[in-house]
Amino acid sequence: MAENEAEADRTPDGVHVGLDDGLVKEVEIALDEDDALLVAALCEPLHPADLADLLQLVPPDQRTRIIGALGEAFDVETFSYLDDVVREDLVRALGPDGASALIKELETDDALEILADLDDEEKAAILASLPLPERTALQRGLAYPDYSAGRLMQREVVAVPDYWVVGQTIDYLRAKADLPDDFYDIYIVDPRFVPVGSVPLSNILRSRRNTPMRELRMKELHTVPATMDQEEVAFLFRQYGLVSVPVVDEEDRLLGAVTIDDAVDVMHEEAEEDFLKLGGVQETDLYQTPVRTMVQRMPWLVVNLGTAIVASLVIAQFEGAIAQIVALAVLMPIVASMGGNAGTQTLTVTVRSLAVRELTTTNAWRMLGKEFLVSLMNGAIFIAIGFFLAVFWFDDLQLAAVFGVALLINLLAAGVAGIAIPLVIDRLGLDPAVSSGVFLTTVTDVVGFFAFLGLAGYFLF
Amino acid sequence: MAENEAEADRTPDGVHVGLDDGLVKEVEIALDEDDALLVAALCEPLHPADLADLLQLVPPDQRTRIIGALGEAFDVETFSYLDDVVREDLVRALGPDGASALIKELETDDALEILADLDDEEKAAILASLPLPERTALQRGLAYPDYSAGRLMQREVVAVPDYWVVGQTIDYLRAKADLPDDFYDIYIVDPRFVPVGSVPLSNILRSRRNTPMRELRMKELHTVPATMDQEEVAFLFRQYGLVSVPVVDEEDRLLGAVTIDDAVDVMHEEAEEDFLKLGGVQETDLYQTPVRTMVQRMPWLVVNLGTAIVASLVIAQFEGAIAQIVALAVLMPIVASMGGNAGTQTLTVTVRSLAVRELTTTNAWRMLGKEFLVSLMNGAIFIAIGFFLAVFWFDDLQLAAVFGVALLINLLAAGVAGIAIPLVIDRLGLDPAVSSGVFLTTVTDVVGFFAFLGLAGYFLF
Repeated sequence: MAENEAEADRTPDGVHVGLDDGLVKEVEIALDEDDALLVAALCEPLHPADLADLLQLVPPDQRTRIIGALGEAFDVETFSYLDDVVREDLVRALGPDGASALIKELETDDALEILADLDDEEKAAILASLPLPERTALQRGLAYPDYSAGRLMQREVVAVPDYWVVGQTIDYLRAKADLPDDFYDIYIVDPRFVPVGSVPLSNILRSRRNTPMRELRMKELHTVPATMDQEEVAFLFRQYGLVSVPVVDEEDRLLGAVTIDDAVDVMHEEAEEDFLKLGGVQETDLYQTPVRTMVQRMPWLVVNLGTAIVASLVIAQFEGAIAQIVALAVLMPIVASMGGNAGTQTLTVTVRSLAVRELTTTNAWRMLGKEFLVSLMNGAIFIAIGFFLAVFWFDDLQLAAVFGVALLINLLAAGVAGIAIPLVIDRLGLDPAVSSGVFLTTVTDVVGFFAFLGLAGYFLF
Repeated sequence: MAENEAEADRTPDGVHVGLDDGLVKEVEIALDEDDALLVAALCEPLHPADLADLLQLVPPDQRTRIIGALGEAFDVETFSYLDDVVREDLVRALGPDGASALIKELETDDALEILADLDDEEKAAILASLPLPERTALQRGLAYPDYSAGRLMQREVVAVPDYWVVGQTIDYLRAKADLPDDFYDIYIVDPRFVPVGSVPLSNILRSRRNTPMRELRMKELHTVPATMDQEEVAFLFRQYGLVSVPVVDEEDRLLGAVTIDDAVDVMHEEAEEDFLKLGGVQETDLYQTPVRTMVQRMPWLVVNLGTAIVASLVIAQFEGAIAQIVALAVLMPIVASMGGNAGTQTLTVTVRSLAVRELTTTNAWRMLGKEFLVSLMNGAIFIAIGFFLAVFWFDDLQLAAVFGVALLINLLAAGVAGIAIPLVIDRLGLDPAVSSGVFLTTVTDVVGFFAFLGLAGYFLF
């Protein structure tokens, strides 16, 4: 903590980069000693984002104790920074009354996120306990599809008619009571409330009072329909470097705005999802109970068992050959494993390129050709390495030749399958990140075992 | 294109979400027909980000032709949206004169990015051709470490003394000529030019002219040293929902600012890097030549060959057993593969949790215990499945029992290794995303083959 104090001395408001591990330990010790005052004193100065991290780091039963110790000093905004699983548990622990009190204090988009986690019954109970205006706003939000722009947006926006000048806009902002907490752009709307332009606040501040607002608008206006998928919305922010985007209804009228902080959260979630899927995990399960973690991971393992059995069936066809030359059993996992790894490399690049839209129908054939070339070069190298390895190990030229050729064949199959499988899955409208891996290893195992044992059966007997 | 025109009718400035595949094809046809006018007409309306995507999608030789067709209409900002590899090639194609002309037109941070890609010799040639002020600014930027806040920041910021009021600030902004293109916060500095507060533009616009600026500052000020790693900077933006952050020198004086668009680019790059590393790829190689792609992917394959050989050496110890019961050769890949997949699931969650700092010394032991429990439950299920599978297939109770127990042992080893390996690598200060996978599959292969063949050797003979 001494270091933190030194930092705090340097600038009046302190420098914080995330949560301090030492602090977490101090809180845990204070909890062990049941010293609620110390817990509160340690946690109160934390930013809600850091407090959320702290709650996630400690065991589940300590979470409610920390919130209890903080009492009135607990910032409800902390909830919007929590992982879904942890948040759901905590909301349940609060009970229906606590949950409605919480929802009332949060902004619409954060409240919606919490409600969306709950069962229909719990949702209905909480909604019923809210005053009419809040209830209506939330029900309208819940009517948009999950993961849509409508769910992400905040309803409070600043919109002005296009005949206004800068002075009028500034006077309006100074007088208006219910401005959004954070906003970066002012939207120009036509008489039907359709956005026709977006003006960054910096453009207003650098212009004289009599400048017409329409002169300050950006060259391009990006609007998103309320039903647009959040991944598309995030793509828009990243592609064009936006900080806010107006959300419109089916008749193009302004409904609200999505701001960059929400878009950043979506990017983070989507990146996490893609990463986990590549490793055969469906969602973040760090905070899940062991039983639920097991249940969620099981389907992938069962599918993998199936593909492993398919590969073993290929081996079973060549039992006779293996019984005579046991070296085949020793070398065959190498052929399969090399194919699997080379294929995974290609697959990884392909899945990522599809996700960020850098691989499309336009360049797919060219990239397939490239991967084939890469595999051919890899194959040429490993046919040599494999040959010498096998000669050195088993002192059998024919076996070594068969091993090298099998490696080449499997590397070629791996390269082509690594790009073709995700492309086909993507074309079918499915998510290539989820299932490509299973198909790929099935291909590389089956081709690997079949090529090696088949060639051995043909040439060595 | 008809669809695009319909969109453009709806709102004056059109709605664009990324690049249209049809347009890419039209451009390619126009290039085939050598119709430079049509190419220019098709590409000119594109946002620089979309033009960059277009340049990446077409074959390398067509890129310079498109830029040539656009001539004066080519927006140099396009360069800042290009993938490193493509950008480097294009800058080389421009020659030293073209490159310095380009650098002169770009903002400091974009120019720095391009210079950083080049060799020292090319860098020196371009710098020498620039006028002194630009050269000095770029040299100062290049003095910061690669991937640091100093490289990311723009030097142009708006800073005001803390005794100013809103009216003074607005008048100053209206009079100041060299304001940054985009800014979202105004920094309050003390007489030594040390930032002491940050005021969002929205707070200025909603306040009366006589409001003191210091009253409008955010509760917390986050500053970053120029040497801070860009990944840390991006973490700060995401954790606290920032839109800009002041960059300071060793004496805490304001040097510049990093804005959210740059932070988003970093988040995107880091997510990409983590994803690719998990699949055994060192960097995006979509736009690399086949030879360079092969060279970059080769080390991983060689390492994998090494680990595969280690696993095969284990098998070789049991050649006698396999020669007598060939079913062992048929079943052994299943044991290894199940361990590999279960371990990869755990590894993926662990690597991700470490990257986003949700797994720390504080909760590591608890999470290790959880993964052990999950593996135990998985093992209990697969010992049963494995037993019945082997009985059904080979009609041998003893073999089936050995197979089931080996599955259980390997799943336990996989679960523990999946979390312990990346934790240890992380503790050693290395990147767990890169090397964990190799160690993990070595463990699951060796344990899998050894447990299955070893138990078989002990109990079946």
